[in-house]
Amino acid sequence: MLTFIGLGLYDERSISVEGREALRAADRVFAEFYTSRLVGATVDDLEAYHDVEIEVRPREGVEQDPGAILDAAAEGDAVFCTAGDTMISTTHTDLRLRAEERGIDTRVIHGVTAQSAASSLTGLQNYRFGKATTLPFPYAHGGDDVPQSVIDTVEANRERGLHTVVYLDIKVGTGPTGPDPDHEEYMTADVAAALLAEGWRDELAVVIARAGSPDAVVAADRLSALAERDFGDPLHLLVIPGDLHHVEADALVGLAGAPTELVGE
Amino acid sequence: MLTFIGLGLYDERSISVEGREALRAADRVFAEFYTSRLVGATVDDLEAYHDVEIEVRPREGVEQDPGAILDAAAEGDAVFCTAGDTMISTTHTDLRLRAEERGIDTRVIHGVTAQSAASSLTGLQNYRFGKATTLPFPYAHGGDDVPQSVIDTVEANRERGLHTVVYLDIKVGTGPTGPDPDHEEYMTADVAAALLAEGWRDELAVVIARAGSPDAVVAADRLSALAERDFGDPLHLLVIPGDLHHVEADALVGLAGAPTELVGE
Repeated sequence: MLTFIGLGLYDERSISVEGREALRAADRVFAEFYTSRLVGATVDDLEAYHDVEIEVRPREGVEQDPGAILDAAAEGDAVFCTAGDTMISTTHTDLRLRAEERGIDTRVIHGVTAQSAASSLTGLQNYRFGKATTLPFPYAHGGDDVPQSVIDTVEANRERGLHTVVYLDIKVGTGPTGPDPDHEEYMTADVAAALLAEGWRDELAVVIARAGSPDAVVAADRLSALAERDFGDPLHLLVIPGDLHHVEADALVGLAGAPTELVGE
Repeated sequence: MLTFIGLGLYDERSISVEGREALRAADRVFAEFYTSRLVGATVDDLEAYHDVEIEVRPREGVEQDPGAILDAAAEGDAVFCTAGDTMISTTHTDLRLRAEERGIDTRVIHGVTAQSAASSLTGLQNYRFGKATTLPFPYAHGGDDVPQSVIDTVEANRERGLHTVVYLDIKVGTGPTGPDPDHEEYMTADVAAALLAEGWRDELAVVIARAGSPDAVVAADRLSALAERDFGDPLHLLVIPGDLHHVEADALVGLAGAPTELVGE
Protein backbone atom coordinates (compact mmCIF):
# COMPACT_ATOMS: atom_id res chain seq x y z
CA MET A 1 0.00 0.00 0.00
CA LEU A 2 1.21 3.49 -0.87
CA THR A 3 -0.47 6.27 1.09
CA PHE A 4 0.01 9.87 -0.01
CA ILE A 5 -0.29 12.18 2.98
CA GLY A 6 -0.55 15.95 2.83
CA LEU A 7 1.17 17.51 5.83
CA GLY A 8 -0.76 20.78 5.50
CA LEU A 9 0.67 24.26 5.58
CA TYR A 10 2.79 25.04 8.57
CA ASP A 11 4.18 22.62 11.15
CA GLU A 12 3.98 19.10 12.57
CA ARG A 13 0.44 19.71 13.83
CA SER A 14 -1.01 20.84 10.48
CA ILE A 15 -1.56 17.21 9.41
CA SER A 16 -5.01 15.66 9.87
CA VAL A 17 -5.62 13.24 12.73
CA GLU A 18 -6.19 10.50 10.13
CA GLY A 19 -2.90 11.37 8.45
CA ARG A 20 -1.05 11.30 11.74
CA GLU A 21 -2.35 7.83 12.50
CA ALA A 22 -1.38 6.53 9.05
CA LEU A 23 2.08 8.07 9.40
CA ARG A 24 2.66 6.36 12.72
CA ALA A 25 1.44 3.01 11.45
CA ALA A 26 3.62 3.00 8.30
CA ASP A 27 6.54 0.67 7.75
CA ARG A 28 8.49 3.30 5.77
CA VAL A 29 7.95 7.03 5.41
CA PHE A 30 9.28 9.00 2.42
CA ALA A 31 8.96 12.75 1.92
CA GLU A 32 10.02 15.49 -0.47
CA PHE A 33 10.36 19.18 0.34
CA TYR A 34 11.48 20.55 -3.03
CA THR A 35 7.98 21.51 -4.22
CA SER A 36 7.17 23.24 -0.93
CA ARG A 37 8.09 22.93 2.72
CA LEU A 38 6.75 23.36 6.22
CA VAL A 39 8.24 26.59 7.50
CA GLY A 40 7.28 25.86 11.12
CA ALA A 41 8.90 22.44 11.46
CA THR A 42 12.17 20.78 10.47
CA VAL A 43 12.39 17.15 9.46
CA ASP A 44 13.77 16.45 12.94
CA ASP A 45 10.70 18.10 14.46
CA LEU A 46 8.43 15.94 12.33
CA GLU A 47 10.32 12.77 13.21
CA ALA A 48 10.26 13.53 16.93
CA TYR A 49 6.61 14.56 17.05
CA HIS A 50 5.29 11.66 15.01
CA ASP A 51 7.84 9.13 16.28
CA VAL A 52 8.83 8.01 12.80
CA GLU A 53 11.94 7.99 10.65
CA ILE A 54 11.52 10.06 7.49
CA GLU A 55 13.53 9.38 4.33
CA VAL A 56 13.72 12.73 2.52
CA ARG A 57 14.17 12.37 -1.25
CA PRO A 58 15.47 14.96 -3.70
CA ARG A 59 13.69 15.54 -7.00
CA GLU A 60 15.81 12.97 -8.85
CA GLY A 61 15.05 10.37 -6.20
CA VAL A 62 11.31 10.72 -6.72
CA GLU A 63 10.89 11.52 -10.36
CA GLN A 64 13.70 9.59 -12.05
CA ASP A 65 14.18 6.78 -9.56
CA PRO A 66 10.88 5.99 -7.86
CA GLY A 67 11.78 2.30 -7.64
CA ALA A 68 12.77 2.31 -3.97
CA ILE A 69 9.49 3.92 -2.93
CA LEU A 70 7.46 1.52 -5.05
CA ASP A 71 9.38 -1.48 -3.71
CA ALA A 72 8.67 -0.39 -0.14
CA ALA A 73 4.99 0.01 -1.01
CA ALA A 74 4.88 -3.45 -2.60
CA GLU A 75 6.41 -5.02 0.50
CA GLY A 76 4.52 -3.16 3.23
CA ASP A 77 2.79 0.07 4.19
CA ALA A 78 4.72 2.97 2.68
CA VAL A 79 3.85 6.62 3.03
CA PHE A 80 4.88 9.46 0.74
CA CYS A 81 4.31 12.90 2.17
CA THR A 82 4.72 16.54 1.19
CA ALA A 83 3.66 19.93 2.51
CA GLY A 84 0.12 20.99 1.56
CA ASP A 85 -1.72 18.24 -0.30
CA THR A 86 0.49 15.72 -2.08
CA MET A 87 -1.62 15.39 -5.21
CA ILE A 88 -3.03 18.79 -6.17
CA SER A 89 -0.43 19.39 -8.83
CA THR A 90 0.49 16.68 -11.30
CA THR A 91 4.02 16.40 -9.88
CA HIS A 92 3.30 13.17 -8.01
CA THR A 93 0.48 11.80 -10.14
CA ASP A 94 3.10 9.82 -12.06
CA LEU A 95 4.19 8.06 -8.86
CA ARG A 96 0.60 7.13 -8.09
CA LEU A 97 0.00 5.82 -11.61
CA ARG A 98 3.20 3.75 -11.51
CA ALA A 99 2.09 2.21 -8.23
CA GLU A 100 -1.34 1.34 -9.64
CA GLU A 101 0.31 -0.20 -12.71
CA ARG A 102 2.34 -2.44 -10.42
CA GLY A 103 -0.84 -3.52 -8.66
CA ILE A 104 -0.03 -1.59 -5.49
CA ASP A 105 -3.07 -0.11 -3.72
CA THR A 106 -2.89 3.64 -3.22
CA ARG A 107 -4.86 6.13 -1.20
CA VAL A 108 -4.72 9.84 -0.55
CA ILE A 109 -5.07 11.52 2.85
CA HIS A 110 -5.60 15.16 2.07
CA GLY A 111 -3.81 18.15 3.53
CA VAL A 112 -4.84 21.79 3.65
CA THR A 113 -3.66 23.75 0.62
CA ALA A 114 -2.51 27.35 0.17
CA GLN A 115 -5.38 27.80 -2.26
CA SER A 116 -7.97 27.09 0.43
CA ALA A 117 -6.12 29.29 2.90
CA ALA A 118 -5.97 32.17 0.40
CA SER A 119 -9.74 32.22 0.28
CA SER A 120 -10.29 31.51 3.96
CA LEU A 121 -7.91 34.14 5.36
CA THR A 122 -8.88 37.00 3.05
CA GLY A 123 -12.65 36.62 3.12
CA LEU A 124 -12.59 36.37 -0.69
CA GLN A 125 -15.10 33.74 -1.72
CA ASN A 126 -13.76 30.48 -3.14
CA TYR A 127 -16.39 30.59 -5.93
CA ARG A 128 -15.01 33.86 -7.23
CA PHE A 129 -11.44 32.76 -7.98
CA GLY A 130 -10.34 32.07 -11.53
CA LYS A 131 -7.25 30.19 -12.70
CA ALA A 132 -4.18 30.56 -10.47
CA THR A 133 -0.68 31.44 -11.66
CA THR A 134 2.91 31.46 -10.40
CA LEU A 135 5.34 34.36 -10.51
CA PRO A 136 8.83 32.98 -11.22
CA PHE A 137 12.13 34.53 -10.21
CA PRO A 138 13.25 36.68 -13.16
CA TYR A 139 16.40 34.57 -13.56
CA ALA A 140 14.27 31.43 -13.77
CA HIS A 141 12.38 32.47 -16.87
CA GLY A 142 15.21 34.28 -18.59
CA GLY A 143 13.67 37.73 -18.45
CA ASP A 144 13.88 40.60 -16.04
CA ASP A 145 10.20 41.25 -15.56
CA VAL A 146 6.80 39.57 -15.26
CA PRO A 147 6.10 36.81 -17.81
CA GLN A 148 3.27 37.58 -20.21
CA SER A 149 1.46 34.38 -19.13
CA VAL A 150 1.07 35.80 -15.59
CA ILE A 151 -0.32 39.08 -16.92
CA ASP A 152 -2.67 37.25 -19.28
CA THR A 153 -4.04 35.04 -16.49
CA VAL A 154 -4.77 37.98 -14.18
CA GLU A 155 -6.38 39.99 -16.98
CA ALA A 156 -8.50 37.10 -18.24
CA ASN A 157 -9.77 36.54 -14.70
CA ARG A 158 -10.49 40.23 -14.19
CA GLU A 159 -12.49 40.40 -17.39
CA ARG A 160 -14.81 37.91 -15.71
CA GLY A 161 -14.64 39.72 -12.36
CA LEU A 162 -12.59 36.90 -10.79
CA HIS A 163 -9.79 36.90 -8.22
CA THR A 164 -6.34 35.43 -9.00
CA VAL A 165 -4.03 33.58 -6.64
CA VAL A 166 -0.41 34.36 -7.54
CA TYR A 167 1.92 31.74 -6.07
CA LEU A 168 5.49 32.91 -5.56
CA ASP A 169 8.45 30.99 -6.84
CA ILE A 170 10.29 28.47 -4.66
CA LYS A 171 13.73 27.25 -5.61
CA VAL A 172 15.08 24.37 -3.54
CA GLY A 173 18.01 22.36 -4.87
CA THR A 174 18.32 24.55 -7.99
CA GLY A 175 19.85 28.02 -8.03
CA PRO A 176 20.57 30.72 -10.60
CA THR A 177 23.43 28.69 -12.04
CA GLY A 178 21.78 25.27 -12.02
CA PRO A 179 21.53 22.32 -9.60
CA ASP A 180 22.77 23.19 -6.10
CA PRO A 181 21.71 20.95 -3.20
CA ASP A 182 22.16 23.76 -0.66
CA HIS A 183 20.13 26.36 -2.54
CA GLU A 184 16.88 27.41 -0.86
CA GLU A 185 15.14 30.59 -2.03
CA TYR A 186 11.57 31.79 -1.55
CA MET A 187 10.21 34.83 -3.34
CA THR A 188 8.75 37.25 -0.79
CA ALA A 189 5.58 39.24 -1.32
CA ASP A 190 7.32 42.64 -1.33
CA VAL A 191 9.55 41.47 -4.19
CA ALA A 192 6.54 40.10 -6.05
CA ALA A 193 4.54 43.28 -5.48
CA ALA A 194 7.45 45.36 -6.83
CA LEU A 195 7.59 43.24 -9.98
CA LEU A 196 3.82 43.43 -10.53
CA ALA A 197 3.70 47.16 -9.67
CA GLU A 198 5.69 47.91 -12.82
CA GLY A 199 2.52 47.37 -14.80
CA TRP A 200 -0.15 47.77 -12.14
CA ARG A 201 1.17 50.42 -9.75
CA ASP A 202 -2.07 51.44 -8.03
CA GLU A 203 -3.94 48.17 -8.26
CA LEU A 204 -5.27 46.52 -5.12
CA ALA A 205 -3.57 43.30 -4.04
CA VAL A 206 -3.61 41.14 -0.93
CA VAL A 207 -0.53 39.58 0.66
CA ILE A 208 -0.84 36.40 2.68
CA ALA A 209 2.24 35.49 4.68
CA ARG A 210 2.66 32.25 6.61
CA ALA A 211 -0.81 30.88 5.89
CA GLY A 212 -1.75 28.21 8.40
CA SER A 213 0.62 29.51 11.08
CA PRO A 214 -0.35 31.26 14.33
CA ASP A 215 1.23 34.48 13.03
CA ALA A 216 -0.29 34.54 9.55
CA VAL A 217 -0.38 38.07 8.10
CA VAL A 218 -3.00 39.30 5.63
CA ALA A 219 -2.47 42.77 4.18
CA ALA A 220 -4.37 44.56 1.39
CA ASP A 221 -3.05 47.69 -0.28
CA ARG A 222 -1.82 49.11 -3.59
CA LEU A 223 0.91 46.98 -5.17
CA SER A 224 3.33 49.93 -4.96
CA ALA A 225 2.67 50.24 -1.21
CA LEU A 226 2.97 46.49 -0.58
CA ALA A 227 6.35 46.59 -2.36
CA GLU A 228 7.67 48.85 0.44
CA ARG A 229 6.68 46.59 3.32
CA ASP A 230 8.35 43.62 5.05
CA PHE A 231 6.14 40.60 5.65
CA GLY A 232 8.67 38.50 7.54
CA ASP A 233 9.44 34.84 7.04
CA PRO A 234 8.10 32.82 4.06
CA LEU A 235 5.96 31.34 2.60
CA HIS A 236 4.13 34.25 1.01
CA LEU A 237 1.55 34.53 -1.76
CA LEU A 238 -0.46 37.29 -3.39
CA VAL A 239 -4.07 37.60 -4.46
CA ILE A 240 -5.15 40.08 -7.13
CA PRO A 241 -8.85 40.65 -6.48
CA GLY A 242 -11.42 40.96 -9.26
CA ASP A 243 -14.83 42.50 -8.59
CA LEU A 244 -15.69 42.61 -4.90
CA HIS A 245 -18.96 41.50 -3.35
CA HIS A 246 -19.80 43.86 -0.47
CA VAL A 247 -18.96 41.24 2.18
CA GLU A 248 -15.60 40.69 0.45
CA ALA A 249 -14.92 44.43 0.48
CA ASP A 250 -15.82 44.58 4.19
CA ALA A 251 -13.48 41.66 4.86
CA LEU A 252 -10.54 43.25 3.04
CA VAL A 253 -11.00 46.43 5.08
CA GLY A 254 -11.75 44.73 8.40
CA LEU A 255 -9.33 41.79 8.23
CA ALA A 256 -6.59 43.04 5.89
CA GLY A 257 -6.52 46.81 6.42
CA ALA A 258 -7.41 47.72 2.83
CA PRO A 259 -7.76 51.48 2.24
CA THR A 260 -11.52 51.99 1.80
CA GLU A 261 -11.08 53.98 -1.43
CA LEU A 262 -9.54 50.90 -3.07
CA VAL A 263 -12.47 48.59 -2.40
CA GLY A 264 -15.18 50.87 -3.72
CA GLU A 265 -16.68 51.67 -0.33
CA MET B 1 -11.10 34.55 21.53
CA LEU B 2 -13.14 33.09 18.68
CA THR B 3 -11.43 30.27 16.78
CA PHE B 4 -12.91 29.08 13.49
CA ILE B 5 -12.04 25.44 12.94
CA GLY B 6 -12.54 23.52 9.72
CA LEU B 7 -13.41 19.89 10.45
CA GLY B 8 -12.34 18.72 7.00
CA LEU B 9 -14.28 16.46 4.71
CA TYR B 10 -15.37 13.21 6.21
CA ASP B 11 -15.35 12.20 9.86
CA GLU B 12 -14.03 13.04 13.34
CA ARG B 13 -10.45 12.33 12.25
CA SER B 14 -10.45 14.69 9.24
CA ILE B 15 -9.64 17.68 11.50
CA SER B 16 -6.01 18.79 11.83
CA VAL B 17 -4.04 17.93 14.95
CA GLU B 18 -3.87 21.65 15.74
CA GLY B 19 -7.64 21.94 15.33
CA ARG B 20 -8.23 18.97 17.58
CA GLU B 21 -6.13 20.50 20.34
CA ALA B 22 -7.96 23.84 20.07
CA LEU B 23 -11.32 22.06 20.14
CA ARG B 24 -10.42 20.20 23.31
CA ALA B 25 -9.10 23.33 25.02
CA ALA B 26 -12.18 25.48 24.27
CA ASP B 27 -14.65 26.67 26.89
CA ARG B 28 -17.58 26.43 24.45
CA VAL B 29 -17.89 24.78 21.05
CA PHE B 30 -20.48 25.87 18.48
CA ALA B 31 -21.05 24.25 15.08
CA GLU B 32 -23.34 24.49 12.08
CA PHE B 33 -24.07 21.73 9.58
CA TYR B 34 -26.49 23.50 7.24
CA THR B 35 -23.83 24.58 4.71
CA SER B 36 -22.29 21.12 4.61
CA ARG B 37 -21.87 18.16 6.91
CA LEU B 38 -19.52 15.31 7.79
CA VAL B 39 -21.06 12.20 6.28
CA GLY B 40 -18.82 9.86 8.26
CA ALA B 41 -19.58 11.17 11.76
CA THR B 42 -22.62 12.29 13.73
CA VAL B 43 -22.50 15.09 16.27
CA ASP B 44 -22.48 12.39 18.96
CA ASP B 45 -19.43 10.81 17.32
CA LEU B 46 -17.64 14.17 17.29
CA GLU B 47 -18.51 14.85 20.92
CA ALA B 48 -17.34 11.43 22.07
CA TYR B 49 -14.13 11.41 20.06
CA HIS B 50 -13.05 14.94 21.00
CA ASP B 51 -14.52 14.84 24.52
CA VAL B 52 -16.40 18.10 24.09
CA GLU B 53 -20.01 19.26 24.13
CA ILE B 54 -21.05 20.76 20.79
CA GLU B 55 -23.85 23.33 20.50
CA VAL B 56 -25.24 22.92 16.98
CA ARG B 57 -26.85 26.08 15.65
CA PRO B 58 -29.36 26.41 12.80
CA ARG B 59 -28.93 29.09 10.14
CA GLU B 60 -31.05 31.63 12.07
CA GLY B 61 -28.99 31.08 15.20
CA VAL B 62 -25.77 31.97 13.40
CA GLU B 63 -26.75 34.55 10.85
CA GLN B 64 -29.54 36.47 12.55
CA ASP B 65 -28.65 35.95 16.18
CA PRO B 66 -24.88 35.59 16.55
CA GLY B 67 -24.97 37.30 19.97
CA ALA B 68 -24.66 34.13 22.04
CA ILE B 69 -21.57 33.00 20.11
CA LEU B 70 -19.95 36.42 20.38
CA ASP B 71 -20.73 36.65 24.12
CA ALA B 72 -19.06 33.28 24.69
CA ALA B 73 -16.03 34.44 22.70
CA ALA B 74 -15.84 37.66 24.72
CA GLU B 75 -15.91 35.74 27.99
CA GLY B 76 -13.60 32.83 27.14
CA ASP B 77 -12.28 30.58 24.41
CA ALA B 78 -15.08 29.85 21.96
CA VAL B 79 -14.82 27.69 18.86
CA PHE B 80 -17.08 27.80 15.82
CA CYS B 81 -16.71 24.84 13.52
CA THR B 82 -18.07 23.54 10.23
CA ALA B 83 -17.29 20.79 7.75
CA GLY B 84 -14.53 21.63 5.24
CA ASP B 85 -12.93 25.01 5.98
CA THR B 86 -15.12 27.43 7.91
CA MET B 87 -14.17 30.56 6.00
CA ILE B 88 -13.82 29.72 2.29
CA SER B 89 -17.24 31.08 1.38
CA THR B 90 -18.41 34.41 2.72
CA THR B 91 -21.14 32.75 4.82
CA HIS B 92 -19.25 33.15 8.09
CA THR B 93 -17.11 36.17 7.24
CA ASP B 94 -19.80 38.33 8.80
CA LEU B 95 -19.42 36.51 12.14
CA ARG B 96 -15.67 37.06 12.07
CA LEU B 97 -16.06 40.76 11.25
CA ARG B 98 -18.60 41.22 14.06
CA ALA B 99 -16.19 39.62 16.50
CA GLU B 100 -13.33 41.87 15.38
CA GLU B 101 -15.61 44.91 15.73
CA ARG B 102 -16.30 43.94 19.34
CA GLY B 103 -12.57 43.69 19.97
CA ILE B 104 -12.61 39.88 20.17
CA ASP B 105 -9.48 38.20 18.80
CA THR B 106 -10.17 35.68 16.05
CA ARG B 107 -8.11 33.03 14.33
CA VAL B 108 -8.71 30.42 11.67
CA ILE B 109 -7.56 26.81 11.81
CA HIS B 110 -7.99 25.50 8.30
CA GLY B 111 -9.70 22.35 7.16
CA VAL B 112 -9.38 20.41 3.92
CA THR B 113 -11.87 21.57 1.27
CA ALA B 114 -13.74 19.73 -1.47
CA GLN B 115 -12.00 22.00 -3.97
CA SER B 116 -8.58 20.66 -2.98
CA ALA B 117 -9.86 17.10 -2.96
CA ALA B 118 -11.37 17.52 -6.43
CA SER B 119 -7.95 18.26 -7.80
CA SER B 120 -6.07 15.78 -5.64
CA LEU B 121 -8.27 12.74 -6.32
CA THR B 122 -8.67 13.22 -10.06
CA GLY B 123 -5.10 14.08 -10.98
CA LEU B 124 -6.38 17.29 -12.58
CA GLN B 125 -3.94 20.05 -11.78
CA ASN B 126 -5.06 22.78 -9.36
CA TYR B 127 -3.59 25.43 -11.68
CA ARG B 128 -5.90 24.44 -14.48
CA PHE B 129 -9.23 24.98 -12.74
CA GLY B 130 -11.32 28.06 -13.49
CA LYS B 131 -14.21 29.47 -11.50
CA ALA B 132 -16.37 26.90 -9.70
CA THR B 133 -20.16 26.73 -9.81
CA THR B 134 -23.06 25.03 -8.01
CA LEU B 135 -25.86 23.05 -9.63
CA PRO B 136 -29.08 23.73 -7.66
CA PHE B 137 -32.09 21.44 -7.34
CA PRO B 138 -34.50 22.45 -10.11
CA TYR B 139 -37.16 23.39 -7.51
CA ALA B 140 -34.67 25.69 -5.76
CA HIS B 141 -34.13 27.96 -8.73
CA GLY B 142 -37.69 27.84 -10.05
CA GLY B 143 -36.85 26.11 -13.32
CA ASP B 144 -36.76 22.51 -14.44
CA ASP B 145 -33.32 22.44 -16.01
CA VAL B 146 -29.78 23.75 -15.62
CA PRO B 147 -29.48 27.47 -14.83
CA GLN B 148 -27.81 29.52 -17.55
CA SER B 149 -25.19 30.74 -15.03
CA VAL B 150 -23.90 27.17 -14.64
CA ILE B 151 -23.66 26.68 -18.40
CA ASP B 152 -21.95 30.05 -18.83
CA THR B 153 -19.36 29.27 -16.16
CA VAL B 154 -18.46 25.90 -17.69
CA GLU B 155 -18.28 27.37 -21.20
CA ALA B 156 -16.20 30.39 -20.17
CA ASN B 157 -13.74 28.05 -18.45
CA ARG B 158 -13.58 25.72 -21.45
CA GLU B 159 -12.85 28.61 -23.79
CA ARG B 160 -9.67 29.04 -21.76
CA GLY B 161 -9.05 25.29 -21.56
CA LEU B 162 -9.89 25.20 -17.84
CA HIS B 163 -11.60 22.59 -15.65
CA THR B 164 -14.78 23.39 -13.69
CA VAL B 165 -15.79 22.09 -10.28
CA VAL B 166 -19.58 21.70 -10.13
CA TYR B 167 -20.74 21.53 -6.53
CA LEU B 168 -24.07 19.81 -6.03
CA ASP B 169 -26.90 21.37 -4.07
CA ILE B 170 -27.39 20.67 -0.37
CA LYS B 171 -30.66 21.49 1.32
CA VAL B 172 -30.68 21.13 5.09
CA GLY B 173 -33.44 22.79 7.09
CA THR B 174 -35.18 24.06 3.94
CA GLY B 175 -37.25 21.88 1.61
CA PRO B 176 -39.28 22.34 -1.57
CA THR B 177 -42.04 24.12 0.36
CA GLY B 178 -39.87 26.30 2.59
CA PRO B 179 -38.26 26.01 6.05
CA ASP B 180 -38.39 22.48 7.44
CA PRO B 181 -36.03 21.53 10.28
CA ASP B 182 -36.13 17.84 9.35
CA HIS B 183 -35.36 18.28 5.67
CA GLU B 184 -32.00 16.94 4.51
CA GLU B 185 -31.38 16.46 0.80
CA TYR B 186 -28.14 16.06 -1.16
CA MET B 187 -28.03 16.08 -4.94
CA THR B 188 -26.29 12.94 -6.16
CA ALA B 189 -23.91 12.84 -9.10
CA ASP B 190 -26.15 10.66 -11.28
CA VAL B 191 -28.96 13.22 -10.96
CA ALA B 192 -26.53 16.04 -11.72
CA ALA B 193 -25.10 14.18 -14.71
CA ALA B 194 -28.63 13.57 -16.07
CA LEU B 195 -29.42 17.30 -15.80
CA LEU B 196 -26.17 18.31 -17.49
CA ALA B 197 -26.45 15.57 -20.15
CA GLU B 198 -29.50 17.34 -21.60
CA GLY B 199 -27.12 19.84 -23.16
CA TRP B 200 -23.83 17.95 -23.11
CA ARG B 201 -24.73 14.32 -23.69
CA ASP B 202 -21.35 12.97 -24.79
CA GLU B 203 -19.10 15.31 -22.87
CA LEU B 204 -16.51 13.91 -20.47
CA ALA B 205 -17.13 14.51 -16.77
CA VAL B 206 -15.65 13.18 -13.55
CA VAL B 207 -17.67 12.18 -10.48
CA ILE B 208 -16.10 12.36 -7.04
CA ALA B 209 -18.12 10.66 -4.31
CA ARG B 210 -17.26 10.85 -0.61
CA ALA B 211 -14.03 12.81 -1.02
CA GLY B 212 -11.83 12.43 2.03
CA SER B 213 -13.35 9.11 3.05
CA PRO B 214 -11.70 5.68 2.87
CA ASP B 215 -14.19 4.65 0.15
CA ALA B 216 -13.95 7.71 -2.07
CA VAL B 217 -15.01 6.95 -5.66
CA VAL B 218 -13.65 8.76 -8.72
CA ALA B 219 -15.27 7.91 -12.06
CA ALA B 220 -14.80 9.54 -15.46
CA ASP B 221 -17.15 8.93 -18.38
CA ARG B 222 -19.66 10.60 -20.70
CA LEU B 223 -22.33 12.55 -18.81
CA SER B 224 -25.04 10.31 -20.27
CA ALA B 225 -23.23 7.21 -18.96
CA LEU B 226 -22.59 8.71 -15.51
CA ALA B 227 -26.33 9.48 -15.29
CA GLU B 228 -27.01 5.71 -15.35
CA ARG B 229 -24.71 4.81 -12.47
CA ASP B 230 -25.14 4.75 -8.69
CA PHE B 231 -22.33 6.33 -6.68
CA GLY B 232 -23.66 5.51 -3.22
CA ASP B 233 -23.85 7.80 -0.23
CA PRO B 234 -23.25 11.56 -0.48
CA LEU B 235 -21.48 13.97 -0.69
CA HIS B 236 -20.85 13.99 -4.43
CA LEU B 237 -19.46 16.56 -6.84
CA LEU B 238 -18.66 16.73 -10.55
CA VAL B 239 -15.75 18.09 -12.52
CA ILE B 240 -16.11 19.08 -16.17
CA PRO B 241 -12.58 18.92 -17.57
CA GLY B 242 -11.19 21.48 -19.98
CA ASP B 243 -8.11 20.73 -22.07
CA LEU B 244 -6.08 17.82 -20.70
CA HIS B 245 -2.35 17.78 -20.16
CA HIS B 246 -1.03 14.30 -20.97
CA VAL B 247 -0.45 13.46 -17.30
CA GLU B 248 -4.02 14.54 -16.54
CA ALA B 249 -5.32 12.32 -19.34
CA ASP B 250 -3.28 9.38 -18.01
CA ALA B 251 -4.68 10.02 -14.53
CA LEU B 252 -8.30 10.06 -15.71
CA VAL B 253 -7.77 6.75 -17.47
CA GLY B 254 -5.65 5.13 -14.75
CA LEU B 255 -7.41 6.43 -11.64
CA ALA B 256 -10.95 7.15 -12.83
CA GLY B 257 -11.53 4.61 -15.62
CA ALA B 258 -12.08 7.19 -18.37
CA PRO B 259 -12.65 5.66 -21.83
CA THR B 260 -9.44 6.42 -23.71
CA GLU B 261 -11.28 7.86 -26.73
CA LEU B 262 -12.69 10.60 -24.48
CA VAL B 263 -9.35 11.90 -23.27
CA GLY B 264 -7.70 12.20 -26.66
CA GLU B 265 -5.29 9.29 -26.15
